[in-house]
Amino acid sequence: MLKISHRGTEMPASPIRKLVPFAEAAKKKGTKVFHLNIGQPDIETPKECLDAVKHCDITVLEYSHSAGMESYRKKLVEYYQRNHIDVTHEEIIVTTGGSEAILFGFMACLDAGDEVIIPEPFYANYNGFAMQADVNVVPISSSIESGFALPPIEDFEKAITPKTKAIVVCNPNNPTGYLYSAAEMETLKQIVIKHNLFLFADEAYREFCYQGAHTSAMHLKGAEQHVILMDTISKRYSACGGRIGAFITKNKEVFTAAMKFAQARLSPPFYAQVLGEAAVDLPENYFDSTKAEYQLRRDIIVKRLNEMPGVFCPNPGGAFYAMARLPIDDCDTFCQWLLESFSHEGATVMLAPGTGFYSTPGLGKNEVRLAYVLNADSINKAMDCLAKALEVYPGRIYDL
Amino acid sequence: MLKISHRGTEMPASPIRKLVPFAEAAKKKGTKVFHLNIGQPDIETPKECLDAVKHCDITVLEYSHSAGMESYRKKLVEYYQRNHIDVTHEEIIVTTGGSEAILFGFMACLDAGDEVIIPEPFYANYNGFAMQADVNVVPISSSIESGFALPPIEDFEKAITPKTKAIVVCNPNNPTGYLYSAAEMETLKQIVIKHNLFLFADEAYREFCYQGAHTSAMHLKGAEQHVILMDTISKRYSACGGRIGAFITKNKEVFTAAMKFAQARLSPPFYAQVLGEAAVDLPENYFDSTKAEYQLRRDIIVKRLNEMPGVFCPNPGGAFYAMARLPIDDCDTFCQWLLESFSHEGATVMLAPGTGFYSTPGLGKNEVRLAYVLNADSINKAMDCLAKALEVYPGRIYDL
Repeated sequence: MLKISHRGTEMPASPIRKLVPFAEAAKKKGTKVFHLNIGQPDIETPKECLDAVKHCDITVLEYSHSAGMESYRKKLVEYYQRNHIDVTHEEIIVTTGGSEAILFGFMACLDAGDEVIIPEPFYANYNGFAMQADVNVVPISSSIESGFALPPIEDFEKAITPKTKAIVVCNPNNPTGYLYSAAEMETLKQIVIKHNLFLFADEAYREFCYQGAHTSAMHLKGAEQHVILMDTISKRYSACGGRIGAFITKNKEVFTAAMKFAQARLSPPFYAQVLGEAAVDLPENYFDSTKAEYQLRRDIIVKRLNEMPGVFCPNPGGAFYAMARLPIDDCDTFCQWLLESFSHEGATVMLAPGTGFYSTPGLGKNEVRLAYVLNADSINKAMDCLAKALEVYPGRIYDL
Repeated sequence: MLKISHRGTEMPASPIRKLVPFAEAAKKKGTKVFHLNIGQPDIETPKECLDAVKHCDITVLEYSHSAGMESYRKKLVEYYQRNHIDVTHEEIIVTTGGSEAILFGFMACLDAGDEVIIPEPFYANYNGFAMQADVNVVPISSSIESGFALPPIEDFEKAITPKTKAIVVCNPNNPTGYLYSAAEMETLKQIVIKHNLFLFADEAYREFCYQGAHTSAMHLKGAEQHVILMDTISKRYSACGGRIGAFITKNKEVFTAAMKFAQARLSPPFYAQVLGEAAVDLPENYFDSTKAEYQLRRDIIVKRLNEMPGVFCPNPGGAFYAMARLPIDDCDTFCQWLLESFSHEGATVMLAPGTGFYSTPGLGKNEVRLAYVLNADSINKAMDCLAKALEVYPGRIYDL
């Protein structure tokens, strides 16, 4: 018999997307589904950006440079300068989404059997890219009690083996919303320098910090050769479908290796580079209103969650996610039950089961991730559903 | 010291793109460079397609479905039906260029250490994806004397080991332009069925066949479970920069595995899906003029090449490439010399060295690939340059 690959077999299905058929069935029954399950913002893409694509006069849709259009990379330098990140356009490879930046990082720095340490819960798709690169993810657990702060340095050191090549940090964090402090980033810097590791920094949510400033991995003096920034415009400008990100490093050897992978896939998509280039010229206050809107939603969702008996949700400092502990037996069962067997005033809510974000079996069973990508009114209605659901869910646990 | 990955070190740089700095230097000196080195067509992207993007009214640039927009996949079914390829929209994953379709195929079907057989010369970037998947490419040589026909079945059987999992066929072929006959495709079918292998079919140039009909791997009755079609709209509609391709298979297990890789990278780019959807509705005669134009250019370039003393160029049956044997010592040296040290009436020509398309060391040293992506007048001028260059090149060999 023809056999597919082990990696194809073992590759985990997206924990977020596997509930989609149940959501579709719920909708077919006429139930309104509030989607708090995925990081697809409802925020409008800036008109200036959409217009840049509309006004794009080309006659041949040619390949871009494999590193991305030079004009766009030069524009990006301005963007990073505003964020006190000092890079040149020759240290940037424009990628097909942040996803490809992660893949290039893993491919350029890690070999089959190497280990990468990631504080869990973590963005589930890191697993997918690790699987493609045949790399082992070694999780170290952060706890909901501490609001998902960086685990102590000893936990990292216990996890480091001769095969450890890198640490991934997502700041502010998806799925927890945790914003790592300057001190925590400094700790990471010390670890990667002491143990000679790469630091892969996913900063997709850089602009969405609600308390305290963002410390980029690119700000870490002395770690320049260790840091690979994996960036994306998806959330920043609500441009997820454009598929434009960036791979940035001052490490020339890493850059050269990544560039070869970039050349193999020829070029990043053209149109969204045009959109991204226009985005850098948005007025300086562009993020103010988006950030204020997300902060308002965060305040509502966290308050509503903590008002529900048996629920605990730490207050996230950034991104647009909250991770909550619910008084339930099993989040996968619960999230499916919400779609299959529950409705309140004709509606239900779709959440992402916590288990999908943990690599250690058994962790996250009573946690869910909520993406506050709906407006305040919808969030309130979704929270009405959730509160009601927790009252009637057969697998409710009362003595958490 | 921080060390990058072995695959990052060993990954070959693009053989086509490594000459770019020399071309840039030539242009700075004021030399006109005729680019016959890359498959970037000069053909205009259909206005209907570009307009579809311009008229695209969205307010939020959202992620598509990970398999691509359903409306586009349904449209693609029409396109394939016109090509007598019977697929449903649920057998199609829209990919980020044909490149990603190749990557998904390798990842879903092959594990580290597995072997994939590819007739050489072959599209150099297969090496890049093989490197990412830690897969070994086993070349079997086709010869310029036979016009790069499929090597005999015995050559395949000699190359097959217990680790062999797949064969790649690019039809019509890049870089040779060879159009595999129905009989040759039937031979491949027998091999993959007998030895239980996957058949990866790259049919990027399907429409550009100048003698005889195209036999798709999807036409091979009885091999349905073996075939993975890796397709792209890049050349078909001169839409290289859009980065839209397709991964198509009737093998459900392979599809499910590939879909997990597709979910990890979230979605293909939105805008070029809109463009691709519009392309399916182009008038039925759309390809007639493009094909006629390419055929005209082929006729010129092949005639001009074969008129040059010591040059041999088989007449390619498809695509827009020709592979020629030149009376030279070393194609890499020659192609660089053309850019660095030669000009004729203020111009020179950029070619792709043949070595880059062979995996067996030493092969292709006196061959070059020419992409006939310029108009007839430019091709004639480029051939004037080449003829002159061969007269004066210091490494010319007279007794080939």
